Amino acid sequence: MKAEIITVGTELLMGQVVNSNAAYLSKELSSLGIEIYHQVTVGDNAERLTEAIKVAESRADAIILTGGLGPTEDDITKSVVSNHLGVDMVIHEETEEKIIERHRHSDFKMPENNRLQALILEGSEPLLNDDGLAVGVFLEKDNRVYVMLPGPPSELKPMVENYLKNRLIELENENQKLVSRMIRLFGLTEAQVAEQLDSIIKEQSNPTIAIYASNGESKVRITAKGKTEEECETMITEIEEEIKAKVGDYIYGYGDHTLSYVVQSLLFEQSKKITAAESLTGGAFLSCIASEQGASSVLDGGIVVYSSEKKHQALGVSNETLNTYGMVSAECAVEMAEKALEKFDADIAVSLTGVAGPHPLEGKEAGIVWIGIAHKGQTTFAKYFHFKRDRDNNRNLSVLNALNLVRRSLLGLNIKEKVFYMNHNDKRV
Amino acid sequence: MKAEIITVGTELLMGQVVNSNAAYLSKELSSLGIEIYHQVTVGDNAERLTEAIKVAESRADAIILTGGLGPTEDDITKSVVSNHLGVDMVIHEETEEKIIERHRHSDFKMPENNRLQALILEGSEPLLNDDGLAVGVFLEKDNRVYVMLPGPPSELKPMVENYLKNRLIELENENQKLVSRMIRLFGLTEAQVAEQLDSIIKEQSNPTIAIYASNGESKVRITAKGKTEEECETMITEIEEEIKAKVGDYIYGYGDHTLSYVVQSLLFEQSKKITAAESLTGGAFLSCIASEQGASSVLDGGIVVYSSEKKHQALGVSNETLNTYGMVSAECAVEMAEKALEKFDADIAVSLTGVAGPHPLEGKEAGIVWIGIAHKGQTTFAKYFHFKRDRDNNRNLSVLNALNLVRRSLLGLNIKEKVFYMNHNDKRV
Repeated sequence: MKAEIITVGTELLMGQVVNSNAAYLSKELSSLGIEIYHQVTVGDNAERLTEAIKVAESRADAIILTGGLGPTEDDITKSVVSNHLGVDMVIHEETEEKIIERHRHSDFKMPENNRLQALILEGSEPLLNDDGLAVGVFLEKDNRVYVMLPGPPSELKPMVENYLKNRLIELENENQKLVSRMIRLFGLTEAQVAEQLDSIIKEQSNPTIAIYASNGESKVRITAKGKTEEECETMITEIEEEIKAKVGDYIYGYGDHTLSYVVQSLLFEQSKKITAAESLTGGAFLSCIASEQGASSVLDGGIVVYSSEKKHQALGVSNETLNTYGMVSAECAVEMAEKALEKFDADIAVSLTGVAGPHPLEGKEAGIVWIGIAHKGQTTFAKYFHFKRDRDNNRNLSVLNALNLVRRSLLGLNIKEKVFYMNHNDKRV
Repeated sequence: MKAEIITVGTELLMGQVVNSNAAYLSKELSSLGIEIYHQVTVGDNAERLTEAIKVAESRADAIILTGGLGPTEDDITKSVVSNHLGVDMVIHEETEEKIIERHRHSDFKMPENNRLQALILEGSEPLLNDDGLAVGVFLEKDNRVYVMLPGPPSELKPMVENYLKNRLIELENENQKLVSRMIRLFGLTEAQVAEQLDSIIKEQSNPTIAIYASNGESKVRITAKGKTEEECETMITEIEEEIKAKVGDYIYGYGDHTLSYVVQSLLFEQSKKITAAESLTGGAFLSCIASEQGASSVLDGGIVVYSSEKKHQALGVSNETLNTYGMVSAECAVEMAEKALEKFDADIAVSLTGVAGPHPLEGKEAGIVWIGIAHKGQTTFAKYFHFKRDRDNNRNLSVLNALNLVRRSLLGLNIKEKVFYMNHNDKRV
């Protein structure tokens, strides 16, 4: 099957938004064996959009449109396709109810145009939007497939993953199954994973192996084609064993399980409570734990001590430590973790203290961070990191590395010698 | 002038690379007043590239091609344009010398195909590549402009900035300017803003007004075309006044200033320190404040009290309040804010307590949240919200609304009667 991607939105033509949807869709469709020869972007203009659809019809079997499903007058994708194909628009009732419900308790009357987001085309299948209001459309007509997806990536991606892909696979080959497994790794960059798995990737055509980088971690997706799901799963497991032999120590989870999910699950299994004393991350670590459903089983509370004064007054770090070693020190990190463990009566406590940046602090460079772990019954330690990123990324990598240290500590894995992320070195432990 | 952007590269169609060049070029060309109605991506295929050029010629005055200028067999852009236009390729000697010089001290013999990067089209002007080897091309032919740029953004951007833009401005020789202003609003959805501004938008063609939704807030971009920047600014300011008359109370900032940035700036101006006691948000509010550069001037610390027990033990909320009204109550929110103000010796304290979801708590539905504000010298209050989203969005909206309450309190704006986001109602204050 040949597909053409048409992304719709004047903001793309103004360069206000980078077209990540085109790349995402291309990658996902390619992984299903669908060929893509053209990506086209047009603005919110009926004439030019119609023209683009006509051109796409001359060379593709599937036309994937993204953007322009919202409630404003600019959002014309569905009506343009409706006019072009001579297929009426109808209300998708489930979506309409959802839209009305969403506005039921608003102080404002619901703007009537919000209902536009519930439109689909007659005879089409709705693609449910679990993360927004605008319903997607999957229409087969004249041996061609027309797909309409919302523009915001946070809505488009789950719609593609949960609804569109299966529908396309069914269409592609009725008797063939496609099964994917996503392996998540922390502590290796995309390039490092690629290097480690190079020989495995080169020997393989089915399953295929794809490596992704995302937000400080790496992911490996294994995708197998076969007659049955079982056959696919067996093929995937074989390859996974080979991958584990190379990088097993960095694998922390599967699918959409994040590091914070894995940490929370481990805490839950071990009936342990966690706390944290945060300086540079200012609550981001605790918030990460609290973001997981069921957080109350593993988290009672924690503290943010940004200033040196509050590290002493509110947490109880000794003035001697602060004056002798400074806030950005192993000694301070160890004491912060131990005081937090005590204060919040937890089983494991994390401390984060360092220089978020961009400016140095106490003569220490931006990106230098100490993460302390006080785990009941074990020796408290602090680990040194030097992230050479901007402020946001330095803080984010601090949180991820703290989660990873907690994970390794809970699992009794080696901590001292492991490389956790590039640009850091072990120091005093 | 109308331009069309053609990005060339199979890696784009496979989704291995996000097409940031298209966004960059669109933004830069738009800022020169050049109109862009189409972006097209094709692979490294002569037939399809030729076809794309022909289509672009039918609707644009300038055809901007990026990618495919390298030394490998895949790099076909210059030869395709050469064949299509019937214009010979010739060596740009300065680039050839640079390529030879670059390889002079190499242990390897220079691969002959490296010389391909020195090719330009007969009668064209070279666009120098200060950051790589492949020279760019600027060709005027039959009242049309053909531009060929390298694919790597690190080479493309300086070439555009230092050589292409001036060349295009000369060509335009019409001193037209394009100026944009972005206004940020909190408390109205995209559809609500659209409805409020409907009449203004309909009356306008210059400046144009575009509305965007992003992450719980709305944005309005005003873009004016004029002879001078001053003229554009004046036109924008006039429209902005009209917009302010409709939704002025919801406008909190401009450009890339976030709510947390605006709050931090206000705190800084007023020499005030902020703190927070967080339950459902688990540190996300504090982390938001800490994320801004210079946070140490306005934040000493704060506390996360997730469990009822820790609200009492670690923060000092009275057991009477917790037992009588529960954690999810105005009374608890007020006491949390006041205790935090005291404990962290701040000028303004925020409390967040509620039901993140998905399950109810204390018989209260998911999404019910009380946000308390204790501001020195003012009466402490708590405001009721009912967000009907998923756990992540309920937490995120809690943080944004808390920031907005702080902003309004610092500015002395009306708080009680204002709608801050859909799906909530005022209760006891």
